[in-house]
Amino acid sequence: MKLTDQQLERFDRDGYLFFPSLFSESEMQALLAEVPKIYAERRPEIVREKDGATPRTSFAAHMYNRVFAKLARHPRMVKPVEQLYGEKLYMHQFKINGKMAFDGDLWQWHQDYGTWKNDDAMPEARAMNVAIFLDEVNEFNGPLMFIPGSHKLGVLEAGHDTTTTSYPLWTIDHETIARLVQRGGIVAPKGPAGSMILFHGCLVHASSANLSPWNRVSVYLSLCAVSNHIRRFKRPGYIAHRDFTPIECLPDDCLLKDYSVALPWKDGTPAEELQGLREAA
Amino acid sequence: MKLTDQQLERFDRDGYLFFPSLFSESEMQALLAEVPKIYAERRPEIVREKDGATPRTSFAAHMYNRVFAKLARHPRMVKPVEQLYGEKLYMHQFKINGKMAFDGDLWQWHQDYGTWKNDDAMPEARAMNVAIFLDEVNEFNGPLMFIPGSHKLGVLEAGHDTTTTSYPLWTIDHETIARLVQRGGIVAPKGPAGSMILFHGCLVHASSANLSPWNRVSVYLSLCAVSNHIRRFKRPGYIAHRDFTPIECLPDDCLLKDYSVALPWKDGTPAEELQGLREAA
Repeated sequence: MKLTDQQLERFDRDGYLFFPSLFSESEMQALLAEVPKIYAERRPEIVREKDGATPRTSFAAHMYNRVFAKLARHPRMVKPVEQLYGEKLYMHQFKINGKMAFDGDLWQWHQDYGTWKNDDAMPEARAMNVAIFLDEVNEFNGPLMFIPGSHKLGVLEAGHDTTTTSYPLWTIDHETIARLVQRGGIVAPKGPAGSMILFHGCLVHASSANLSPWNRVSVYLSLCAVSNHIRRFKRPGYIAHRDFTPIECLPDDCLLKDYSVALPWKDGTPAEELQGLREAA
Repeated sequence: MKLTDQQLERFDRDGYLFFPSLFSESEMQALLAEVPKIYAERRPEIVREKDGATPRTSFAAHMYNRVFAKLARHPRMVKPVEQLYGEKLYMHQFKINGKMAFDGDLWQWHQDYGTWKNDDAMPEARAMNVAIFLDEVNEFNGPLMFIPGSHKLGVLEAGHDTTTTSYPLWTIDHETIARLVQRGGIVAPKGPAGSMILFHGCLVHASSANLSPWNRVSVYLSLCAVSNHIRRFKRPGYIAHRDFTPIECLPDDCLLKDYSVALPWKDGTPAEELQGLREAA
């Protein structure tokens, strides 16, 4: 899997690339089958919705779950990003976002790189967001919405929203969003389970609540160029990883076959990864 | 404007009919120009979002605003419903729903006739919901969502949701919604300003929040067959009207020309219309 010149141009212009049905139904089933087990755990990496019960997001499952650990090394995902950055990658963040039927809440308009820069001291926006649809995404179950071209403006001013949802977020003011949408519009890539989106760390995005009876479980992860690793460990290690070892890909069939992977947090998250540290190690 | 046999069949089967661009852009502009004035009023008929400022819904503008009073007598809206019920109509409820850019909150899955029956003692579901789009409705600004065919089940059990949004609502449980959607799916009619939806009082509907920079102002009103008038005045008169005088239509060009209309609440809402009464008059 190699990105074409046309795809590279489109990524530069729009800030995202959409790959419908990149993974098969059965590959996604292998992942989905693990999700209830993960959400049933009482691990500290799991953030719940305002109701205190429905899982909203779950960090770092690739550190303790075998199937997600294989996904984290999948060549169909890793290789295009290596191509774009021209170097090896490490996993900056890995999460499973529930957006569960009926109870999945919205995410306000935000950029990710602002947080990576301000909290994690990541030098440049050379970390790629990857969204992989474990469920079909349609107009009713809260698809990701992007403002194409908004990544060109770098880091925008943001305010800390601690009230709208259960997860605090640096969000962008209404006037700026209106101006960006006037220029670039809004798109919401929709497609079957197994679809993948690559999007720029500065691309402005949001998503609505899920009022439908269809879960919309997606994996969102961020692949950072190794040379661009974070310099500050202010956030817990399970949110912003501190291990910069380059990802070595598994074979293309890894989701359907057995491959050996390290599961360092299998027996629990190390205490030092549960909190922020004053200085990088 | 007369409904065809095919439209009558479709209404019976799906529980709604969609008329894209039934009104012109300039007719909608005449209405939209009045909305800021109405929302700026401090009348008791205006319900605000949880933020206490953004207008969520505004009742009974046709009782004090000249342009909305003309809409309330528009033949393109009234005639098809008269045809369906075979008798004259009165205005049971009239509201302008803001669903404003960024701050417009969601409406959970519900039916309207449940409330009309339980609170207002309306004998049958012979009152038609009408939605008229003053702004374009697209996938991003919180379109109405319907479960086609769900009106066939009559009044479903509902629980009183007083926490999700600023407006308390009798909402339907998740299991029932999942079952109905399994059978009928979900549709969300979208279209330009001036489009109209007629939908059955038992049709299950909801709408998402509006995270987009585009307002989605719509008029929602309910036209009740005169013989089916409500029997109980438990809710304030500005929410469930107590005047059953049959609507007399104005000419088709009424939104663009001057016609004389009564504005009985022009100088304020009568005190007895602000509260529920024990008995019907």
